[in-house]
Amino acid sequence: MTTTPTTTTGRVLLVGGGPGDPGLLTIAGRDALAVADVVVTDRLAPLAAIVEHAPQAEVVHVGKIPRGDFTPQERINELLVEHALAGRTVVRLKGGDGYLFGRGGEEWQACAAAGVAVEVVPGVSSAFAVPALAGIPVTHRGLSQGVVVVSGHVAPEDPRSEVDWAALATSRLTIVVLMGVATLGSIARALVAAGMPADTPAACVADGASPQQRSVRAPLSGIAAAADEGDFAPPAITVIGDVVAALDPVAPAGP
Amino acid sequence: MTTTPTTTTGRVLLVGGGPGDPGLLTIAGRDALAVADVVVTDRLAPLAAIVEHAPQAEVVHVGKIPRGDFTPQERINELLVEHALAGRTVVRLKGGDGYLFGRGGEEWQACAAAGVAVEVVPGVSSAFAVPALAGIPVTHRGLSQGVVVVSGHVAPEDPRSEVDWAALATSRLTIVVLMGVATLGSIARALVAAGMPADTPAACVADGASPQQRSVRAPLSGIAAAADEGDFAPPAITVIGDVVAALDPVAPAGP
Repeated sequence: MTTTPTTTTGRVLLVGGGPGDPGLLTIAGRDALAVADVVVTDRLAPLAAIVEHAPQAEVVHVGKIPRGDFTPQERINELLVEHALAGRTVVRLKGGDGYLFGRGGEEWQACAAAGVAVEVVPGVSSAFAVPALAGIPVTHRGLSQGVVVVSGHVAPEDPRSEVDWAALATSRLTIVVLMGVATLGSIARALVAAGMPADTPAACVADGASPQQRSVRAPLSGIAAAADEGDFAPPAITVIGDVVAALDPVAPAGP
Repeated sequence: MTTTPTTTTGRVLLVGGGPGDPGLLTIAGRDALAVADVVVTDRLAPLAAIVEHAPQAEVVHVGKIPRGDFTPQERINELLVEHALAGRTVVRLKGGDGYLFGRGGEEWQACAAAGVAVEVVPGVSSAFAVPALAGIPVTHRGLSQGVVVVSGHVAPEDPRSEVDWAALATSRLTIVVLMGVATLGSIARALVAAGMPADTPAACVADGASPQQRSVRAPLSGIAAAADEGDFAPPAITVIGDVVAALDPVAPAGP
C-alpha cells in the first residue's frame, strides 16, 4: 500500500529481509536496496545483503539487543521520517517479515502521519522458514490443520501476558514461539498444566538460517532443559506439536 | 535439510515461490530455477518467474483447481522422484511457502524414501504477505500478541473439521483463514456463537499480490455477504481481528 506523498519526494520502503540468509531476501527486497540512499537496519536483518546490494547507501544500525543497547521505536520512526523528508529513498530493513512482531505497522503510521509515501515489501517470515530449515513442516496432513505464532517475550504468569496459553494447549494447532528462550520453561509448564501432553514433540532452533544454526528436540516437558544445556540464546524459535516428528521416521532407501 | 543421495545424481528442490508476484520470489528460489532441468509447478506459483529464470527447463503443471482438474498428490510425489532418479535437477515450485498447507512434508518424505536428495527453500507465505499488501499488519502492539493461520477448506460444522474455532474465538489472536471463501459464512457464525464480537473488524483479500488484487472490509458478521457481493472467489485470504483496522485512521498530514 502506498500513500500519496504531500511534502517530499523521499519515500520509505518497509522491507522484510527474511530470516538472515541473504539468499532468502526477495528479489523486490534486493531491488529496494539497490535504489536506497539510506538503509535503517535491525541486527537480525541480512546484513551481508546490504553490503552486496546497497554499497551506495548510508547504513544506520538501530538493532535491539536483548537487555543491551537499542534505539527506541519512537526514534526509529523519527529517523525514517527525517530522511524521507530530506528527499531520500529510505529502506527500513528488518529480519523476517516486518509485520509479524516487527513493529512495521507503527512505522507505517509514523510515515503516513508525516505525509511520507511508504510501501511494504513482505519478507520470508522466520516463524515458518526456520522450522522448515530444521526439517519441520509447520503443517502436515493428518497432524495439524493450522499453526499459531506467538511471542514468548513475557512468561505466561506475567501480568503483561495477553496470550491465552491454556486455549492453545488444547487447540490441536502447531505452536511456534518467537522470542521465548528465557521463558521456555514457564511456557511448557503452562501448556502441560492446561492439558497438552507432556510428551508432545518440541524443538528449539537457534540462529536459524545462518551457518550457526543448531537445533535440539525433546518432549515438551524437557525442551527448556535441553535448550539450557545447549546454551541456546536469542535469536531462537521453538516449535511444539506433532509436526516436529513428522519427517523423522523416514529412512532413505538404499540400492 | 538434505539427505544423502544413494541412487541418483538428480535432486529435488522444494521452493516456496511466494504469493504470486515474481518480485516476491527469493534470490535462492531464483537461483534454484536457474539450474532446474524440470520445474513441477502449482497454479498459484509465480509462473512469470519460470519464464524469466528457467527458460531452459521442462515445465510440468500439476495445479489443483478447486472442483476442477488436478494431479493427485501421490502422482506429484512420483513425478518428483522419477525425474530425480533420471538424474535431473527438479524444482518443485509452489505458491506461498511449501510447508504451510503446501504438502511439502509429504513430498519430502517421498523423496527421502526413494533415496533422492531433497532441499527446502522457504518462501514468502501468502498468509502474512497478502494481508500486508492490503494494509493489514498481522500483529500490532496493543492489539495482538500473535496470529493463527488455519485452513477453512472444511466448514466448522463439517465432521472432518479439526480446527477448534470456539477456542480461537476467545484467543485474542489475529485469525488468518486460507482456502475459506466458500465456508466464510459458517466460520463467522461459529466464531460469533463462541463469543467473538460480531463487530470484530474483518477483511477478505482475493488474488493477493497480483495486479487483480482486491479487498473488502466489513464487521465479522457481514464479511461473508460482502465477499459474496464482490464475487470473491479462490484464491482469497480472510483476516479477522482488530489489526484489520489498525492502519485505517491515519490521515496523511498536508502542508
